Amino acid sequence: MDNSIFSKDIKNWRNSLKKLPFTSNPFDCDKLHEECGVFGIFNHPDAAAYTVLGLHALQHRGQEAAGIVTHDGSQFYSHKSLGHVADNFNTQPVIESLPGTSGIGHVRYSTSGGAGLRNVQPLFADLSIGGFAVAHNGNLTNSFQLRKTLVSKGSIFQSTSDSEVIIHLVATSTFSHIQDKLIDALRRIEGAFAIVGLTKDYLFGVRDPLGVRPLVIGKLSNGSYVFASESVALDINGAEYIRDVEPGEIVTIDKDGIHSTKPFPAEEPRPCIFEHVYFSRPDSIFKGTSIYRVRKNIGVELAKESSVEVDLVIPVPDSGVPAAIGYAQQAKIPFELGIIRNHYVGRTFIEPSNKIRHLGVKLKHNANAAEIKGKRVVLIDDSIVRGTTSLKIVDLMRQAGAKEVHMRIASPPTTDPCFYGVDTPEKDQLLAARMNVREMAAYIGADSLEFVTIDGLYRAVGEENRVTEKPQYCDACFTGEYPTVLTDKEDNNGSNQISEMK
Amino acid sequence: MDNSIFSKDIKNWRNSLKKLPFTSNPFDCDKLHEECGVFGIFNHPDAAAYTVLGLHALQHRGQEAAGIVTHDGSQFYSHKSLGHVADNFNTQPVIESLPGTSGIGHVRYSTSGGAGLRNVQPLFADLSIGGFAVAHNGNLTNSFQLRKTLVSKGSIFQSTSDSEVIIHLVATSTFSHIQDKLIDALRRIEGAFAIVGLTKDYLFGVRDPLGVRPLVIGKLSNGSYVFASESVALDINGAEYIRDVEPGEIVTIDKDGIHSTKPFPAEEPRPCIFEHVYFSRPDSIFKGTSIYRVRKNIGVELAKESSVEVDLVIPVPDSGVPAAIGYAQQAKIPFELGIIRNHYVGRTFIEPSNKIRHLGVKLKHNANAAEIKGKRVVLIDDSIVRGTTSLKIVDLMRQAGAKEVHMRIASPPTTDPCFYGVDTPEKDQLLAARMNVREMAAYIGADSLEFVTIDGLYRAVGEENRVTEKPQYCDACFTGEYPTVLTDKEDNNGSNQISEMK
Amino acid sequence: MDNSIFSKDIKNWRNSLKKLPFTSNPFDCDKLHEECGVFGIFNHPDAAAYTVLGLHALQHRGQEAAGIVTHDGSQFYSHKSLGHVADNFNTQPVIESLPGTSGIGHVRYSTSGGAGLRNVQPLFADLSIGGFAVAHNGNLTNSFQLRKTLVSKGSIFQSTSDSEVIIHLVATSTFSHIQDKLIDALRRIEGAFAIVGLTKDYLFGVRDPLGVRPLVIGKLSNGSYVFASESVALDINGAEYIRDVEPGEIVTIDKDGIHSTKPFPAEEPRPCIFEHVYFSRPDSIFKGTSIYRVRKNIGVELAKESSVEVDLVIPVPDSGVPAAIGYAQQAKIPFELGIIRNHYVGRTFIEPSNKIRHLGVKLKHNANAAEIKGKRVVLIDDSIVRGTTSLKIVDLMRQAGAKEVHMRIASPPTTDPCFYGVDTPEKDQLLAARMNVREMAAYIGADSLEFVTIDGLYRAVGEENRVTEKPQYCDACFTGEYPTVLTDKEDNNGSNQISEMK
Amino acid sequence: MDNSIFSKDIKNWRNSLKKLPFTSNPFDCDKLHEECGVFGIFNHPDAAAYTVLGLHALQHRGQEAAGIVTHDGSQFYSHKSLGHVADNFNTQPVIESLPGTSGIGHVRYSTSGGAGLRNVQPLFADLSIGGFAVAHNGNLTNSFQLRKTLVSKGSIFQSTSDSEVIIHLVATSTFSHIQDKLIDALRRIEGAFAIVGLTKDYLFGVRDPLGVRPLVIGKLSNGSYVFASESVALDINGAEYIRDVEPGEIVTIDKDGIHSTKPFPAEEPRPCIFEHVYFSRPDSIFKGTSIYRVRKNIGVELAKESSVEVDLVIPVPDSGVPAAIGYAQQAKIPFELGIIRNHYVGRTFIEPSNKIRHLGVKLKHNANAAEIKGKRVVLIDDSIVRGTTSLKIVDLMRQAGAKEVHMRIASPPTTDPCFYGVDTPEKDQLLAARMNVREMAAYIGADSLEFVTIDGLYRAVGEENRVTEKPQYCDACFTGEYPTVLTDKEDNNGSNQISEMK
Repeated sequence: MDNSIFSKDIKNWRNSLKKLPFTSNPFDCDKLHEECGVFGIFNHPDAAAYTVLGLHALQHRGQEAAGIVTHDGSQFYSHKSLGHVADNFNTQPVIESLPGTSGIGHVRYSTSGGAGLRNVQPLFADLSIGGFAVAHNGNLTNSFQLRKTLVSKGSIFQSTSDSEVIIHLVATSTFSHIQDKLIDALRRIEGAFAIVGLTKDYLFGVRDPLGVRPLVIGKLSNGSYVFASESVALDINGAEYIRDVEPGEIVTIDKDGIHSTKPFPAEEPRPCIFEHVYFSRPDSIFKGTSIYRVRKNIGVELAKESSVEVDLVIPVPDSGVPAAIGYAQQAKIPFELGIIRNHYVGRTFIEPSNKIRHLGVKLKHNANAAEIKGKRVVLIDDSIVRGTTSLKIVDLMRQAGAKEVHMRIASPPTTDPCFYGVDTPEKDQLLAARMNVREMAAYIGADSLEFVTIDGLYRAVGEENRVTEKPQYCDACFTGEYPTVLTDKEDNNGSNQISEMK
Repeated sequence: MDNSIFSKDIKNWRNSLKKLPFTSNPFDCDKLHEECGVFGIFNHPDAAAYTVLGLHALQHRGQEAAGIVTHDGSQFYSHKSLGHVADNFNTQPVIESLPGTSGIGHVRYSTSGGAGLRNVQPLFADLSIGGFAVAHNGNLTNSFQLRKTLVSKGSIFQSTSDSEVIIHLVATSTFSHIQDKLIDALRRIEGAFAIVGLTKDYLFGVRDPLGVRPLVIGKLSNGSYVFASESVALDINGAEYIRDVEPGEIVTIDKDGIHSTKPFPAEEPRPCIFEHVYFSRPDSIFKGTSIYRVRKNIGVELAKESSVEVDLVIPVPDSGVPAAIGYAQQAKIPFELGIIRNHYVGRTFIEPSNKIRHLGVKLKHNANAAEIKGKRVVLIDDSIVRGTTSLKIVDLMRQAGAKEVHMRIASPPTTDPCFYGVDTPEKDQLLAARMNVREMAAYIGADSLEFVTIDGLYRAVGEENRVTEKPQYCDACFTGEYPTVLTDKEDNNGSNQISEMK
Repeated sequence: MDNSIFSKDIKNWRNSLKKLPFTSNPFDCDKLHEECGVFGIFNHPDAAAYTVLGLHALQHRGQEAAGIVTHDGSQFYSHKSLGHVADNFNTQPVIESLPGTSGIGHVRYSTSGGAGLRNVQPLFADLSIGGFAVAHNGNLTNSFQLRKTLVSKGSIFQSTSDSEVIIHLVATSTFSHIQDKLIDALRRIEGAFAIVGLTKDYLFGVRDPLGVRPLVIGKLSNGSYVFASESVALDINGAEYIRDVEPGEIVTIDKDGIHSTKPFPAEEPRPCIFEHVYFSRPDSIFKGTSIYRVRKNIGVELAKESSVEVDLVIPVPDSGVPAAIGYAQQAKIPFELGIIRNHYVGRTFIEPSNKIRHLGVKLKHNANAAEIKGKRVVLIDDSIVRGTTSLKIVDLMRQAGAKEVHMRIASPPTTDPCFYGVDTPEKDQLLAARMNVREMAAYIGADSLEFVTIDGLYRAVGEENRVTEKPQYCDACFTGEYPTVLTDKEDNNGSNQISEMK
Repeated sequence: MDNSIFSKDIKNWRNSLKKLPFTSNPFDCDKLHEECGVFGIFNHPDAAAYTVLGLHALQHRGQEAAGIVTHDGSQFYSHKSLGHVADNFNTQPVIESLPGTSGIGHVRYSTSGGAGLRNVQPLFADLSIGGFAVAHNGNLTNSFQLRKTLVSKGSIFQSTSDSEVIIHLVATSTFSHIQDKLIDALRRIEGAFAIVGLTKDYLFGVRDPLGVRPLVIGKLSNGSYVFASESVALDINGAEYIRDVEPGEIVTIDKDGIHSTKPFPAEEPRPCIFEHVYFSRPDSIFKGTSIYRVRKNIGVELAKESSVEVDLVIPVPDSGVPAAIGYAQQAKIPFELGIIRNHYVGRTFIEPSNKIRHLGVKLKHNANAAEIKGKRVVLIDDSIVRGTTSLKIVDLMRQAGAKEVHMRIASPPTTDPCFYGVDTPEKDQLLAARMNVREMAAYIGADSLEFVTIDGLYRAVGEENRVTEKPQYCDACFTGEYPTVLTDKEDNNGSNQISEMK
């Protein structure tokens, strides 16, 4: 292993990281992650219970808080809670506090703006035409500009969430009907949004014109329609997957059934390719494609692109497993659980507080030393963000006696932050933005390191290759090519003008 | 005792009430009570701690919840909690979570609109000119009308509190400066309000043109100014009582000192006379008058107006004590603690939830039978609202062996509800609205019952008598003469149009 | 005021105390207080509810924790909680978790040994003859000796409470019947005890041979018997006061009725005289004597013994009120509420934690300055322990403009600690153990200070005077004459041998 | 599928189970599970932190509660909590509340006797020779007999746990030294026990003469010794695995190092074979054998013994994964994740309360339908207890479109309950005790069902075969051959004599 490419400082830092006790690695949250999941249901006697189950199935999209709003024909009901759905919405009193036949729900991962209940969605407004509740997955890229304008006209914001802009735009719209108010509002926002909205009479499901964030439509056996961020929330409720809400489409459910409108200028879709790599559950289906199959395909591509002579293929659990199975099948090398995960800590570091982030790799991972000792292994992981977990995992393998430790990553190098509803570190904290692959290999201490190519990734999702001039997906985190303007980002001097109560 | 004036139904109801076990009297909240207390401080290094102490001294004005907002020169901080100040704001971490040199606070008693944290004040808005926090004691009588207009223009309300109207009016005002926005807003509201407001640069103290609700100004030894609903909140902080904020006055504190403006048309003041009877603490001073002295005076008036030959004067604790002392001194009859109060239940039934309301008289009161037995006693209480407690107290005396039980009340009969920030039952639940005094005596089972006359009350507060054509106080609860229009009350058909989340 | 008798150090300390902010007086718990109250009921369908009410009426005897054990004919049920009865035993689910027709309860004030639930009574043991629960008010003076012996034979203690000795003595007794086991156990303990005990078939009520701690018997209208520390717990339940359990008596209630036995050598009773001065509620009756009347009598004695020319008699609330009424009536000087108490802090400092102890006088007391200003006042308080509150109260009066401040105390100087179940400071912290009355007056800053004489106190409780050779009461805290041996106290070297888990 | 072998009743029941909504299957806890895990450490500056990590690694052995006792040379400290180690022992204040250089800890799964803190271990006693703390994994088979004797002599039990017998036996032992007291106590108990004990001077690690429950010894780099139920608790702390505590051995750690004694009559070891099948983590090592390797071996044996022509090998996650990998490798059939587990519900149903038990299979498992559709699959699971989960999983596969569903189980049929510290249903609830394999296949709806043979299992753990006359392991749950007498079980009439407080 050649460390000479590092400055002394970096080497020292790397060594200090390795030596850190299991509870103090400050960067050990080495995943990008989705910020939200949404669910909606209309005209079903058990609206609240089905929404709870739907959110439970979407828990991986946001573990910090959850909220549900229902409507019973005459009024709205709400329950919000920090923590997991299975812990806070699982009792009869909670379900009973949410009567009604329609409902929407939201799970969230907090980022900026604090983690209090104030920011928990769905958001609600008492409009002149009645109540309106909304839940948003995604991130607006001109929310600060819009907020400034709204505040100057007297709108009072209750949170620092970009999503609150939507509801104020609806409230201040001068159109008469809720559908028109909603379209009026959505035409003014930029960025990524998959939205479910609820009024006394309507359930809305909307995807932004590029379709960056996912939203699917399902149908229950009694004929009720549901919306969900992923199809797994249909499965748990026994709902049939009908189709994706299309990019730029507003789907309205009312007592007469399902209606569609496309009020935005037509654009080429650019769904988020990282949903396939990591965010979505492997048993989810988007545009008819199985996420598990795509991930296995990436493993196959990896094995083709950068094979290495080893004894064992070892997944970094749990997200690396499907790609590792694909790699092992393609490479005809035994697949083994070389790293055992302690499931009592939840998905890797998804909680935002520092205390939990500091819990280290050993709290979650242990080497299955009996399999590793004396073997040449290739580790399969889904991505490298800051590299801190990779570094520790490689170390874990070496301490367990691995003769060689190679690493293969089921996505291209993550070089750029996401502004569309994914929590990413600043660019200067992304390992791939600071080093080339050879340097990264040295940094994490691997005998070799390879990433799937961007074209390999596109092949895995079913494309022939990436169409350079007009990519079929949003892959900005790998390429820096953002599909929308980034209004707020370009307006740097306004960011400190929100008067907020701590 | 002649019960024949009662219909059989009423007699049965009365008897059933007497027989109710100690935990099930549904009407045992037999006091009017103030709904709120406010406090403000500017330019003091311990703003939060002083606000906590001030609110603690005002706790009797609202026990359900409390909130504080502070500002440290660059941003606002907030802490709100259900429950008592002494239980929820008494720790170092809470104080430290509220840094800054200025602050406002609020204690509240909940009425309609639910008791959640959402309704807890101070309210806050991020205005285009910066943050603005406000705490309100009183009640607006045209808030629903204003709310309808604001909502139709896009304002999103977070609560059902009438106070929220104020902050939306400020937010949507087209004036440029906060003072002008505030005046603009206040000119549009009707009803009673004592308000403290806080921005980065200013602390405001405002009383409505009639001065219905109280607000005093104090000064600390370091020169800092404070506002408080009652002077006891100055005492606890060692602040000197300067003067009352005058009816219709906006007092502004800034780095240059204290400023006054009177932007409303001049009106004759009509402060609430019930503050003297019951709401305020006996050690508070309003307009230079001691509340304790006034209450003793009422007892003196009562003894003059309706003396009775008895062996003992017994206060209904605790609120009847000062009047009982005055009565005993005037009548030269021994004052004795004939009823012992269990202080572990807090002030009589001030919590709004039904469970607590149902706790009966025996949980709080016990007869001091050794003193009572074989004696003729006169009980002194501050008021009779529904009569349910009086009925039980009289019964308690008789069970303890009293030979005669007379009752004297230190206020005139309460015949009308208050719309200015006092929680009162509907008119048809007020005993004095349903019966004459003789019937009331029979109802509560007393050998005699007398109320102080309205003129006696006015004499006790220092007037020669009530000026009929232009009363010096708001005494609407005794006279039905409301000093303002009651816009919302007169518009009955709109009350159900708020879309609210439960 | 002549301070010259003080050393400079003491003067400085005194001044520093006066200047302490309202939240930091480390000694502001200036009362002795009772450590426990007990209640028992047998053969009543609402045993748990009645026990809850009984404990609520006894809450002043111990605010830190409460516990109830019931029996339903086949098994025992228990609920224990830190905090007040009215907060933790007031719900239907709690009552329903305590089925059965017999029950005992306990409220406690914690002292040494930590405040965890582990120490909360009633204690319970599964004996070979069935379950046995016990609640104890008092303190054993040979518990450590007994514990050492029990541990050496294999008894495992769960707490550091002296009361646990009783249940181990019962468990290891070789007698066959529970009554004999109990007598066997009680014959071995020294000190003060009022005990209620419960088995499947029996409810026991026991008082130690000297009758130091009180215990009364009551009877409900349905014939059920109850035990309680004070008669107020009978009143709240509508029970008739039958008589005191006699010193040295074991009263047994079973299905056949009430039985009495006196298994201890006869001794002259020595009930605690401080129960009359402060511990008991004024509406309680002991040996047919009204506590309120005794306290008024003490005020009368004080006025006779040490009158002073003043304008007002002012009680230190709430415990000084009855004596102040007696004093005012005897001296023919107006009784006025010159100090107003904020009841949201509970009885003076009864909570044991330092944080609460540090809350100062201003959180609870405010001068009623309008009455005080320019007046000569005499303050009536029940006792002076460390003198810290007195010092602050006198200061409060002077700041409010009192011309002269005299103090009269309704008990003799407290010179010695109690070892019989009362929480007292070490002797060297008792002001009266360190100074004579003149020095104490100077220390607290009063113009004069007098205590009722010991004979005056005995007269007030109905004796002609104290019989020196054989006092009628335990008055050790005033005289140092302890009515029992103090085995543990005399064996100093063993105190550190309890291996305890923190 | 031939259901005709079933009575109509059973068929109806089966169908009703299938139709139950996902939240109401009353038997969905279809695993045996270990009841406890223990950890101990001696002479290390971070004793508490290391114990926390050790217990975290053992969390799968008991999720309901955890406790730690430490000693700092002069006294003991304790922290106990319901819930997970990572949630309740992860803060600095908790660690700081546990000072000292030695400590023991315990994680538990509750069974009978309630789930309160009272039953949480370690248990502690203040013996005449000082404090003694103990944590026990296993179950005593004569604890009730011993308890009866102890109670009759005056021992007071605090819990209904069998483990408490141990500490009372130690307390009442007439030997002088703690080692002798411990041996004296252990000689009187029957059943399974792996124990860690702590005194001021010693840390003990003990295994019962048959070694039914595991206990390993590790050594830290600073020379400190640790004990743990499984080697994974060494790994997380960076401790080296030294060896197993031997059956019948008492290992004592003191300041002079490590000492061993074998005070029991020598017996042939009978370690629990189910530890290999399910209880232990796959990365644990017992007697030098890798659990993961054993489980893969079982899969290999299964593939040899009962191969079936299918397209895919699918593990029932997570416990079926290693055997499925072994099966797939042996059978040369692709291994695929055909069932996706939602990890937000924790290990299958390990919580004991009914509410959680009722959560159904869909909350945890979803079919990866894209892989399953039209395929012949073999499911690999570790065991079948009541069969309820298996039934639902098979159903899940069929709904997802599987053409054939075969099931292979990595253990023999579970026919008999365990009395050695494993929570098992009554025998009549064990599917294999009620049906033969063909009936079971029909019951769960599988096209075929096979279990590994008992000899196959023995081969997988490294034996040639099971030695019938003297089996090398305790396999009573598969064979009904219990290696100890079952004293309490045979004495049925005493079980209701414990007087317990609910």
